[in-house]
Amino acid sequence: MRERLLAAEKVTSIEWRAGELHLLDQRRLPLEETWLTFDSAAGVAEAIRSMLVRGAPVIGIAAAYGLVLGARARLAQGGDWRAELEADFAVLEGARPTAVNLSWALNRLRERLDKLKHGEDPLKALEAEAMAIHLSDREANLTMAQLGMELIRKQQGNLQTLLTHCNTGALATGGFGTALGVIRAAYLEGLVERVYVDETRPWLQGSRLTAWELASEGIPLSLGVDSAAAHLMKTKGITWVIVGADRITANGDVASKIGTYQLAVCAMHHGVRFMVVAPSSSIDMALESGDDIPLEERDGAELLDVGGVRVAAGVEALNPVFDVTPADLIDAIVTEKGVVERPDATKMAALMSRKRLH
Amino acid sequence: MRERLLAAEKVTSIEWRAGELHLLDQRRLPLEETWLTFDSAAGVAEAIRSMLVRGAPVIGIAAAYGLVLGARARLAQGGDWRAELEADFAVLEGARPTAVNLSWALNRLRERLDKLKHGEDPLKALEAEAMAIHLSDREANLTMAQLGMELIRKQQGNLQTLLTHCNTGALATGGFGTALGVIRAAYLEGLVERVYVDETRPWLQGSRLTAWELASEGIPLSLGVDSAAAHLMKTKGITWVIVGADRITANGDVASKIGTYQLAVCAMHHGVRFMVVAPSSSIDMALESGDDIPLEERDGAELLDVGGVRVAAGVEALNPVFDVTPADLIDAIVTEKGVVERPDATKMAALMSRKRLH
Repeated sequence: MRERLLAAEKVTSIEWRAGELHLLDQRRLPLEETWLTFDSAAGVAEAIRSMLVRGAPVIGIAAAYGLVLGARARLAQGGDWRAELEADFAVLEGARPTAVNLSWALNRLRERLDKLKHGEDPLKALEAEAMAIHLSDREANLTMAQLGMELIRKQQGNLQTLLTHCNTGALATGGFGTALGVIRAAYLEGLVERVYVDETRPWLQGSRLTAWELASEGIPLSLGVDSAAAHLMKTKGITWVIVGADRITANGDVASKIGTYQLAVCAMHHGVRFMVVAPSSSIDMALESGDDIPLEERDGAELLDVGGVRVAAGVEALNPVFDVTPADLIDAIVTEKGVVERPDATKMAALMSRKRLH
Repeated sequence: MRERLLAAEKVTSIEWRAGELHLLDQRRLPLEETWLTFDSAAGVAEAIRSMLVRGAPVIGIAAAYGLVLGARARLAQGGDWRAELEADFAVLEGARPTAVNLSWALNRLRERLDKLKHGEDPLKALEAEAMAIHLSDREANLTMAQLGMELIRKQQGNLQTLLTHCNTGALATGGFGTALGVIRAAYLEGLVERVYVDETRPWLQGSRLTAWELASEGIPLSLGVDSAAAHLMKTKGITWVIVGADRITANGDVASKIGTYQLAVCAMHHGVRFMVVAPSSSIDMALESGDDIPLEERDGAELLDVGGVRVAAGVEALNPVFDVTPADLIDAIVTEKGVVERPDATKMAALMSRKRLH
């Protein structure tokens, strides 16, 4: 399975080459494939803020490389580079509030700096740590894909009809995806008849990114408006909703793309199973429940223009880009450390005390 | 209340003047206000099919005027005009499948023709009947606005937070609206704190039309993506979801804009009340349940372009534009004949046997 999954890897959105960070501009996909090069922490932070790069796991990876770029500049300037580097930590950490992967990755770099041995090259140490974060996210994708696929296989019947929201694929991660990785693995195992893809307003990550990723691999898909999901659950025999996460709290509540909560409510109503797939770097054991998660609200103007064209009246628009799905609407949380079915605080704590599977 | 409601009427989308039908091109709103003139049945049918005019009640009215235009041309040609007119009936009735108002209005004209007295001018009779349909829809709006407002007032607490979907206002009807008429009346009575408006993909009737109508009357509104509705119900104290209908069956099931069913499921989950507002011309007692309603599916390409700009990957898209909300998710159906709470077949039959209130 691992080899087949790796062979199916065709898309990437992030590359670290010759000491520079290369990011695919996801705002222009699928119409244009434009790669941009970044050599500063501030530039990477702006790329995250403006959603040039998006997806919880990959923004953690991008921030890590951004910090390496910041450290190089601070070291070159001399002076108290370590103290000045805190400004880069802050600008990167503040780029977006909801996904915890951002601070998780930066904390790993900070810990690495704290453990520097005498005479060790800080830049080399940070670069190695950032690359390790990147590599381990890719490995986590492979493990989660396998675990999630096995969950699907446990159900009666061979061919499943799945529904997913937003983009959780190669563009959102260091590998080929979280929820979309599970869908890829299930498809390779012959378990998938069709994937229904929510277009995911307002940024249309579903129609622009997920549909593009699935189509490029020949996985049968149908795109639909977000509000059709319940109708599709009622009429199309959907068995699983599979989504990613931006932050999971100690009790198993999940912050994810706006609309995820609505899907979970509708899945419960229709007896459709609900799977969340996210690396343990998305789990924030410091927060008790979803009530504590800072939910990003973006500019309402993002609703009034589509593809650069004004479509709506000039009115007040509310643009919460994440919502919280309570644990009791979730059948399974799949991480690289293992699977938690019907999550609660005890099970989440047990999961997090495990060593990594990979 | 009636006078205050009439005074608040500012927008119209349909006018019959000097034997021609004038329609506001709703596809271009709110950026352009373009009126087009129609003098043939085929032209009106195409206007309905292409959604230049949309909204169940108003497409019934437009079809009635379209048939008058057809009759005038057939009469001018001479020959067996009555037999040839059946082609105009057919093209108008076939323009869109889900809203029953279309066939309801055309059946009224057909019955009028069947009752023609010797020597009576068929064109004058048809024109008068079409104008009566138009006028009675406007009256029905006034009655429903009052009845729906009173339902809202029955709840505890003075200021209600409402949520609506699609456009059911002056643009969708012969008057100032069904669901939006209720919202207008409730606002005039001081019952409304804020209205949350779903943008309503793929045609964005919410952001283009409803937000425009509400803003022009100073009613406080917030526009949101369709998938935010459950999150708003959880966090914003919404007390009522109020929507229109395209066809209501004998058991109280309701076909309405795609996404309505999802809202009803989420409203039930959150203890939010769910009100459907529609004239009795939207009630089809010939169909036993929602399973029998023909649900229009439009070209999937409508999802791939927004405002004329290509936004998505070139993939298969599913575009069901209506869904069915079962009666057991509905708290009240408000018609001009009266209100049915917790609808079922017995109560619907009792409603339809009443004389009109107005």
